[in-house]
Amino acid sequence: MRILKVNEDSIENILSDLLKRSPNNYDGYQETVDEIIANVKADGDQAVFDYTKRFDGAEITKENILVTEEEIKEAYDQVDDQLIEVIRKAIKNIREFHEKQVQNSWFETREDGVMLGQKVMPMESCGVYVPGGKAVYPSSVLMNIVPAHVAGVKNIIMTTPPGKDGKVTANTLVAAKEAGAGAVYKVGGAQAIAALAFGTESIPKVDKIVGPGNIFVALAKKSVYGNVSIDSIAGPSEILVLADETANPRYVAADLLSQAEHDEMASAILVTTSEELAQKVSEEVDGFLNQLSRKEIMEKSLESFGYILIAKDIKEAVDVANSIASEHLEIMTDNPFDVMTRIKNAGAIFIGAYSCEPLGDYFAGPNHVLPTNGTAKFFSPLSVDDFIKKSSVVYYSREALEPVHKDIEFFAKQEELTAHANSMRVRFEEE
Amino acid sequence: MRILKVNEDSIENILSDLLKRSPNNYDGYQETVDEIIANVKADGDQAVFDYTKRFDGAEITKENILVTEEEIKEAYDQVDDQLIEVIRKAIKNIREFHEKQVQNSWFETREDGVMLGQKVMPMESCGVYVPGGKAVYPSSVLMNIVPAHVAGVKNIIMTTPPGKDGKVTANTLVAAKEAGAGAVYKVGGAQAIAALAFGTESIPKVDKIVGPGNIFVALAKKSVYGNVSIDSIAGPSEILVLADETANPRYVAADLLSQAEHDEMASAILVTTSEELAQKVSEEVDGFLNQLSRKEIMEKSLESFGYILIAKDIKEAVDVANSIASEHLEIMTDNPFDVMTRIKNAGAIFIGAYSCEPLGDYFAGPNHVLPTNGTAKFFSPLSVDDFIKKSSVVYYSREALEPVHKDIEFFAKQEELTAHANSMRVRFEEE
Repeated sequence: MRILKVNEDSIENILSDLLKRSPNNYDGYQETVDEIIANVKADGDQAVFDYTKRFDGAEITKENILVTEEEIKEAYDQVDDQLIEVIRKAIKNIREFHEKQVQNSWFETREDGVMLGQKVMPMESCGVYVPGGKAVYPSSVLMNIVPAHVAGVKNIIMTTPPGKDGKVTANTLVAAKEAGAGAVYKVGGAQAIAALAFGTESIPKVDKIVGPGNIFVALAKKSVYGNVSIDSIAGPSEILVLADETANPRYVAADLLSQAEHDEMASAILVTTSEELAQKVSEEVDGFLNQLSRKEIMEKSLESFGYILIAKDIKEAVDVANSIASEHLEIMTDNPFDVMTRIKNAGAIFIGAYSCEPLGDYFAGPNHVLPTNGTAKFFSPLSVDDFIKKSSVVYYSREALEPVHKDIEFFAKQEELTAHANSMRVRFEEE
Repeated sequence: MRILKVNEDSIENILSDLLKRSPNNYDGYQETVDEIIANVKADGDQAVFDYTKRFDGAEITKENILVTEEEIKEAYDQVDDQLIEVIRKAIKNIREFHEKQVQNSWFETREDGVMLGQKVMPMESCGVYVPGGKAVYPSSVLMNIVPAHVAGVKNIIMTTPPGKDGKVTANTLVAAKEAGAGAVYKVGGAQAIAALAFGTESIPKVDKIVGPGNIFVALAKKSVYGNVSIDSIAGPSEILVLADETANPRYVAADLLSQAEHDEMASAILVTTSEELAQKVSEEVDGFLNQLSRKEIMEKSLESFGYILIAKDIKEAVDVANSIASEHLEIMTDNPFDVMTRIKNAGAIFIGAYSCEPLGDYFAGPNHVLPTNGTAKFFSPLSVDDFIKKSSVVYYSREALEPVHKDIEFFAKQEELTAHANSMRVRFEEE
């Protein structure tokens, strides 16, 4: 891996390179996506079937678009019992973590007859997109469905592209069933997002669409935003390891590669205060590359978006981490908890030598759907909050309104909203 | 106002009419907005100055784009002291309500050395858009800035279109200063949104853009979503009054008009179980129309999007309210608190005869930036939550990871992510 010293220019260049991966810069695909959305909106099911034939090579119809109980049973027969067991353990952890995110409705009262509050309610329905294609990730199914369940969403619909045989991967189906999906539809890509946003004869319109996907899915989600809610727009995966001389270079190297293997656009960055560690990690990376199956993807990803950066001290390393705002941040330093307190921007923070990123991907409980590509500056991990919505509640008695109604009437008149003022006035017009 | 009986068709038609107001259907403006964004991205300040000249008729330069202390002082001299006093009272209420929304970071521990948590942090910066144009709303300034302040955002930037004289309305400036804006820039429209999203020489890039605006602003916000965060996309204002025979028809009529006056696209709907009330409200509306200044706007709005709907019972009325998911919902029934418990979708709920919508617009404390156009099904009022972001925190000791590492390795292999599996394996390879 290339080793660079941290300075303003190097960070500036890296940030600009990383941002080139943003779905906001894929103008070439937007037209295709817009066309797909327009056709699904106009022709419903038929457009969905046509695109599924074209993109997935599968013959999907009204009769087989919805996964049947029979197909789920078949899937269970095919899946390794050990996987089912691990999935159940993971669900338990994910559920427990997300249950702590549940917000209560609240209200406050005042003795003159004022009640103000915030009513928290689950959305009625959501659509969970699960990618097929290059790799099939049952863990994604769990991470998207469990928080919706914990939030209390009644109708949780999953869509995922079918294989050429018109079937959904067995692992995905079992994960969906275990996590509690209400229905699974065999449709992927921008056509799935359009169907969930506007509804078709077969696929119901939902309130919110979540789940990662390729560039078509990401652009489609952005396009339908406002018609429905969406989670943050997922970009390519990232890891940043912040390490000092106490870190184990083998662990660091292995963890960098665990992100690099996702995608040629994935980014793996080590920021370290130790030149010796930098050198050793680079060697370990080379060693592992030859032992692991996804070598080509990893090489491409490291070549494009992999860096080892030497910082002059922990403070500079923390500044770099905060600038990059990585999806995953591992801290392997002498006092990692102290460093954690100084982190402002990161999707998930992994502390110490044994808290490696795959622990979070599969098992620990926090969500693995995380803000990518610098968006951790303003987006958050997927959570129960994504599946609830709030209403403000206002109650004023006559006694409470009387002493302030003239202030409000005055304010409204200052904004030249005389009907607003009138609404105050009529309530006290007999006085 | 037209009076209709509730039935599936009438509700279906009304919903479809209301949705026509959605910013998602204004394809005609998208191209203009895209061009403005591209030009501001490419030419920075110069593009901002050119558009400000073209759209606002104002000569803005590097030297005068930022409102000065002198201009703020001038504004204070111009503004009615009573307004300043009312603004301060309102800020106190808004601040107190939003302080209750503040979320703490939290963590949980397990005795084998596991710590999982959620770190909650404010965003670094935000941009608050304040419309000029048809009407100037200092109350909007308060509602957007105070929650950002309460969340702890350090850099709160406001942008608002200047008048032809290159000045910002005095009321707006005073509200900004009182609420605590860090800087006010004289720029409006899509060019302001683009500048906040990408930064120019004069205007810094922010993490999130909030605030209502016209169709150009709404479309621009949607376009830059992902580069920055945005609040929900604001559409035209709405009120739905749910009333039975106990309601005062004068209050109901006044409140319907208080929304209708906002905009020709605003919607005012009464759903009532009482035909007598329906008739009386319609008469009162006619009476008020002749007394109020914004008669033409109100007539247009009522003609296009105003309805009085007769429901056969409260249950049906509640169903209608939940289908329409109005921005503002007033409940004026015999037992309004009971009805409130059954409301699923509404931006803000106003309970009883004295909790009229302008009370919420100006004074009570809950935010007046609310989800419009049916989006209350999945969006929430602007709140402190809009200005924070979360990071997950994961710590596992060796002792905690050891008993589960093989499960995680197995799960990773099932997803064919061998580098993920390797990250687990290396940590226990000496065993």
